[in-house]
Amino acid sequence: MNPEEFRQAGHAAIDWIADYMKTVGEMPVLSRVEPGEIRHKLPSSPPVTGESWESVLGDLEEVILPGITHWQSPGFFAYFPANASGPAVLGDLISSGLGVQGMLWATSPAATELETHVLDWLVEMCGLPGRFSSASAGGGVIHDSASSATLVALLAARERATHGQANRHGAGGDLTVYTSVHGHSSIDKAVRIAGYGAERLRHVPARPDQSMDPDALEEAIIADKAEGLTPAAVVATIGTTSSTAIDPIPEVAEVASNHGLWLHVDAAYAGTAAVLPEMRWILDGLDGADSYVFNPHKWMLTNFDCSAFFVADRAHLIETLSIQPEYLRNRATESGAVIDYRDWQIPLGRRFRALKLWFVIRSFGVEGIRAHVRRGIDMAQELAGWVEAHPDFEIAAPHPFSLVCFRHRGGDAVNKRILETINASGEAYITHTVLDGAYTLRVAIGTPTTTIEHVRHLWEKIQAAT
Amino acid sequence: MNPEEFRQAGHAAIDWIADYMKTVGEMPVLSRVEPGEIRHKLPSSPPVTGESWESVLGDLEEVILPGITHWQSPGFFAYFPANASGPAVLGDLISSGLGVQGMLWATSPAATELETHVLDWLVEMCGLPGRFSSASAGGGVIHDSASSATLVALLAARERATHGQANRHGAGGDLTVYTSVHGHSSIDKAVRIAGYGAERLRHVPARPDQSMDPDALEEAIIADKAEGLTPAAVVATIGTTSSTAIDPIPEVAEVASNHGLWLHVDAAYAGTAAVLPEMRWILDGLDGADSYVFNPHKWMLTNFDCSAFFVADRAHLIETLSIQPEYLRNRATESGAVIDYRDWQIPLGRRFRALKLWFVIRSFGVEGIRAHVRRGIDMAQELAGWVEAHPDFEIAAPHPFSLVCFRHRGGDAVNKRILETINASGEAYITHTVLDGAYTLRVAIGTPTTTIEHVRHLWEKIQAAT
Repeated sequence: MNPEEFRQAGHAAIDWIADYMKTVGEMPVLSRVEPGEIRHKLPSSPPVTGESWESVLGDLEEVILPGITHWQSPGFFAYFPANASGPAVLGDLISSGLGVQGMLWATSPAATELETHVLDWLVEMCGLPGRFSSASAGGGVIHDSASSATLVALLAARERATHGQANRHGAGGDLTVYTSVHGHSSIDKAVRIAGYGAERLRHVPARPDQSMDPDALEEAIIADKAEGLTPAAVVATIGTTSSTAIDPIPEVAEVASNHGLWLHVDAAYAGTAAVLPEMRWILDGLDGADSYVFNPHKWMLTNFDCSAFFVADRAHLIETLSIQPEYLRNRATESGAVIDYRDWQIPLGRRFRALKLWFVIRSFGVEGIRAHVRRGIDMAQELAGWVEAHPDFEIAAPHPFSLVCFRHRGGDAVNKRILETINASGEAYITHTVLDGAYTLRVAIGTPTTTIEHVRHLWEKIQAAT
Repeated sequence: MNPEEFRQAGHAAIDWIADYMKTVGEMPVLSRVEPGEIRHKLPSSPPVTGESWESVLGDLEEVILPGITHWQSPGFFAYFPANASGPAVLGDLISSGLGVQGMLWATSPAATELETHVLDWLVEMCGLPGRFSSASAGGGVIHDSASSATLVALLAARERATHGQANRHGAGGDLTVYTSVHGHSSIDKAVRIAGYGAERLRHVPARPDQSMDPDALEEAIIADKAEGLTPAAVVATIGTTSSTAIDPIPEVAEVASNHGLWLHVDAAYAGTAAVLPEMRWILDGLDGADSYVFNPHKWMLTNFDCSAFFVADRAHLIETLSIQPEYLRNRATESGAVIDYRDWQIPLGRRFRALKLWFVIRSFGVEGIRAHVRRGIDMAQELAGWVEAHPDFEIAAPHPFSLVCFRHRGGDAVNKRILETINASGEAYITHTVLDGAYTLRVAIGTPTTTIEHVRHLWEKIQAAT
């Protein structure tokens, strides 16, 4: 495919996506294929000679599309939103076309400097503490996911707690980690990977609103210390996955500070809301955190992967993750005047992901992003009002963001039936959680094309499905 | 940006890339900016209101491009190639446009099934052992990088060696890992992350051709056992980063098998060469490996990130990495009939990366990929011939692939001067390593647009720079 053939094929690909954007709302949201059905349509061996672009695009339509669950559909209310937007898609496209590696400053200076710059913009846009700005001892970096960011935070915490001994002599032993019972599963995964061991993770009880009980946190820390263990880190959450509960960050930060723990704050979904001045309160206490992560790829119009990870002291990351082989040595690195982001993450290689975030912020402007987030919250509050007004349904958790958790009062079987009926309809896709032991419906609003009419239609279908 | 605005902006973005493809060879390969120069051109605050697509594209050209090191330039001979190609770029574009999450089969069945399918295609195309096919107990998965794949392999090895106890009680203790002195830095990083501890990694001496000495490996294992330690894993390399040395996989596999070690084989760059029947010998002994990784994003025309990771027994991965919270439970997962790739990797979220690999294999065909790889190897052999024929230069290592390591006989200072001169010229970009204590030039060939004329020109410039 030479540049002119690429131009032609590329225009066709762009047209395909533009058409997809226009028609995605008409397709069944949740794919209806059975396991193995897609593979069954694919030839068992790869083609010996190249095939035409038309046949590839044709198979995309015929073979792949039926197996897609449409995360960009206005009827997508499952998990959390995974916003794509035109500028983000094109930023990713340019990044692919440039095909550069950003592992070192020297391997593409613009990739590093734009990343530092737009993450400083996020500090300003979201009112994050100044310690997370690159002008301080800290700074931001783009990870693929909050899972990876949390792992890196727990690695840095491990090294801080052991004065670098875990890196040298091995992890494990007496370090403990704390999160609420509603902390994300990536925390459980990270304590295993980083070698703390699953049994060293304490799931601190929650209060009635599903947020971490800071007194219970401190009790757990004191009990562990009495046993001769070494509390190393606490992961607090702003907007849990189950119900968007908000842990009391000021109190948790105080406990962490009193006992010398690394405080990592996971705001993967909800952090984007801080772009709104009226929601800035969710970050109260964040200046006591050692690290913080939120995902522009969830609710900030920037397609996956783009997780913004901030640390208060970048030296901890670099001491934990830097390895300097001869083949990566270069003059810029040795000058000490540049950031090499490979030392801020697990992998060595890295894409130029800052480009899509830059395109999004430039194209929407801060006010455009705010309007999008505000719409999601407003629609969720409207839905919550309808639920509250209905005698057969009940709200299951506070809903400060764009997720509403609720259930029919008829018990688990009724709610499971509602979920199955909605998802089988093809018109919407919702997921569930369990709160206070009861099966609970989750409706997460935030796809850019979702309107209040889509939400109203969903609510009507839910009532009809009981 | 509505669908019609996206169509228009998208065509402009495609045109920009097509033009970039045509002109990249005329730009200085290594960016000439000074640290801070790019940031200096960017406004310190984000825009309040949205800006036009024209102004974004304009800044891409004016502000970003001078800070790009052109990995797709025909004059790029640094590190290893990071191939982009038209079909790959468009596969990534469609993936961004669909904006789906492939963490579970259910969240987009086609993303999972196409991934399994094209990785089985790679098994066939490269003649990989059948144990790495999904039809066996093993299978393949796409990771972002070989670093992540190696980390996952060492986690699985850790759990196998401790019967799952490290996941539960913490890592560290008495486990040891082995690689050659030329093993990649990602292995050093992974043993720290996974909690083995740096001091538990043995760098086994190399033979004169820079490959691992299998006798020294066995001696190290026996010595560690005598000390009461538990050898857990060995990482062998096909095509080291320094010089593309090939560890003796059959002998290493035998040692690993005799002593019960997990054998992970890292063929990040060189693995693509196995697509050539005449290079298939590089995989001798691979049927004794527990896991294997190579990067289509290096030399197989598929832009970063696309690292193909294979395991012989997928149960080890899933036991090591699976966590099942309520909010991810679904009928398909519980049926046991599907793969959930989140359990094969570090993060939870995942892009639809199989699409670009599928597009590449479809568009080039196996023969098209072979022709590309063969050209790289042929050009490298031609360069090596010129070097050998020159009285003042010497070849520094075997060169079975498309990397040639060589040096001027005048010593380190001369070779450093050559490298600085070449890179300052803007016409080519090369990197270095140290072999046998001597500063050594590395010329890695493999960008699709590189011709023998580019290589000849580089060689002339190298001779002139002494």
